[in-house]
Amino acid sequence: MSRAALARVLARARFSRSFGFRVEAVGAGTCTLRVPFRRRLERPGGVVAGPVLMAAADAAVWLAILARPGHEDAVTIEMQTAFLAAGRGEDIRCRARILRWGRRLIHGVAECRGRRGRLLSHHTITYMRVDPRER
Amino acid sequence: MSRAALARVLARARFSRSFGFRVEAVGAGTCTLRVPFRRRLERPGGVVAGPVLMAAADAAVWLAILARPGHEDAVTIEMQTAFLAAGRGEDIRCRARILRWGRRLIHGVAECRGRRGRLLSHHTITYMRVDPRER
Amino acid sequence: MSRAALARVLARARFSRSFGFRVEAVGAGTCTLRVPFRRRLERPGGVVAGPVLMAAADAAVWLAILARPGHEDAVTIEMQTAFLAAGRGEDIRCRARILRWGRRLIHGVAECRGRRGRLLSHHTITYMRVDPRER
Amino acid sequence: MSRAALARVLARARFSRSFGFRVEAVGAGTCTLRVPFRRRLERPGGVVAGPVLMAAADAAVWLAILARPGHEDAVTIEMQTAFLAAGRGEDIRCRARILRWGRRLIHGVAECRGRRGRLLSHHTITYMRVDPRER
Repeated sequence: MSRAALARVLARARFSRSFGFRVEAVGAGTCTLRVPFRRRLERPGGVVAGPVLMAAADAAVWLAILARPGHEDAVTIEMQTAFLAAGRGEDIRCRARILRWGRRLIHGVAECRGRRGRLLSHHTITYMRVDPRER
Repeated sequence: MSRAALARVLARARFSRSFGFRVEAVGAGTCTLRVPFRRRLERPGGVVAGPVLMAAADAAVWLAILARPGHEDAVTIEMQTAFLAAGRGEDIRCRARILRWGRRLIHGVAECRGRRGRLLSHHTITYMRVDPRER
Repeated sequence: MSRAALARVLARARFSRSFGFRVEAVGAGTCTLRVPFRRRLERPGGVVAGPVLMAAADAAVWLAILARPGHEDAVTIEMQTAFLAAGRGEDIRCRARILRWGRRLIHGVAECRGRRGRLLSHHTITYMRVDPRER
Repeated sequence: MSRAALARVLARARFSRSFGFRVEAVGAGTCTLRVPFRRRLERPGGVVAGPVLMAAADAAVWLAILARPGHEDAVTIEMQTAFLAAGRGEDIRCRARILRWGRRLIHGVAECRGRRGRLLSHHTITYMRVDPRER
């Protein structure tokens, strides 16, 4: 799937749409989203809310999976996040990378970075393939 | 802090507000939020998006911390989520419980449950106290 | 499987055996192990090493799975640990509880406690069933 | 601290010593350990036990911290592991890398790889600095 096709997928996803994510780049097992700064993504103290970074990481890994030729849909079964620094009034870039394409499970990592590439969060995510015959 | 005071804190938190969380109960080291069902919290496939559950868990632990007499603010430094089942067209209840009040760190767990108490997700969350003198 | 049968399984597991775990109790979706104190399980500073608690939690969830009638073997695919307090010169009790028996995945939690029930660690663990036909 | 000095630290750590870890390399915020294959590190099925990989990752991040000039000791407060593939009858290399040196917290990641660099596990670890004045 091309970057434009992924952008359409993202636009149809009601929840992700509300964050304003943009697909910046997509490659073999990778996907980069941009999270444009918006006041309504802040938690008290003027910091970008943690769940925004988690939503970006979840979406970026999901799109990296969908981008693969012959993909099927997949659902998140596990996610872990380390929050390293606070994002303040800045756009955020989230880059996902697939670590392993298993028969059942797909493992990925993602990093969110702010201004000048400062690392804000690190995420580990496991997706399970959804077998259409098993639904 | 009373349940009403926590509801006001939540209402001032721009990001959490967008989810429509309601404070249902607050006790010693516990807090229960309700997430009323809304179409715009869905991911494709008619399932409540995973980041909604994570945002609820994060907020519920945060409010359980703020509810404690003599609290200070605290920030999330780590969060882990296991997604156990999909929420579909249903209200969700998220109950947080503090495991340990440390001098620097506060550890909590949270569970999101759907209709008839079905377990949807389990979360482990670590907060770090924010020392006003150190900011 | 009875407690005695689980103890035999544990005794055959070369790696777990080296820790001296004892099966204390087994129930429906639960298993409790005891980790008798041994100097060689310490890290510098006279503290029980973190990986000892993780190994106990991993083993306790595994035994809770094997104890179920009609069980198959299962392998750990994900584990998360929050270390809450240090164990010092004390026996440790690790209690595992299965949160969900899925068709493919089994989710569990475990807690390690020291003297007088003090909580030392909290673990979230995901196992995947091993289908004998697929090996 | 040099590689030889770290090897001495590791040799004094009773628990880690039992695994036979070898310090292969140490750099700025990185450390690589080798886990020589030993039958007694196996779980049933002839697979290297998961806690061996977790112990290696924990030790590798710890040594990367100690290697830094002016280091203090630090304790693990959180660890997350994704198990991607099974190690069978093979030496394992575990490489840790520090993501962030915070004032209180140090965040790192580690990867264990087997034969021909095959990725076996990915770990995220958080350490807290131990302030000698606060003990």
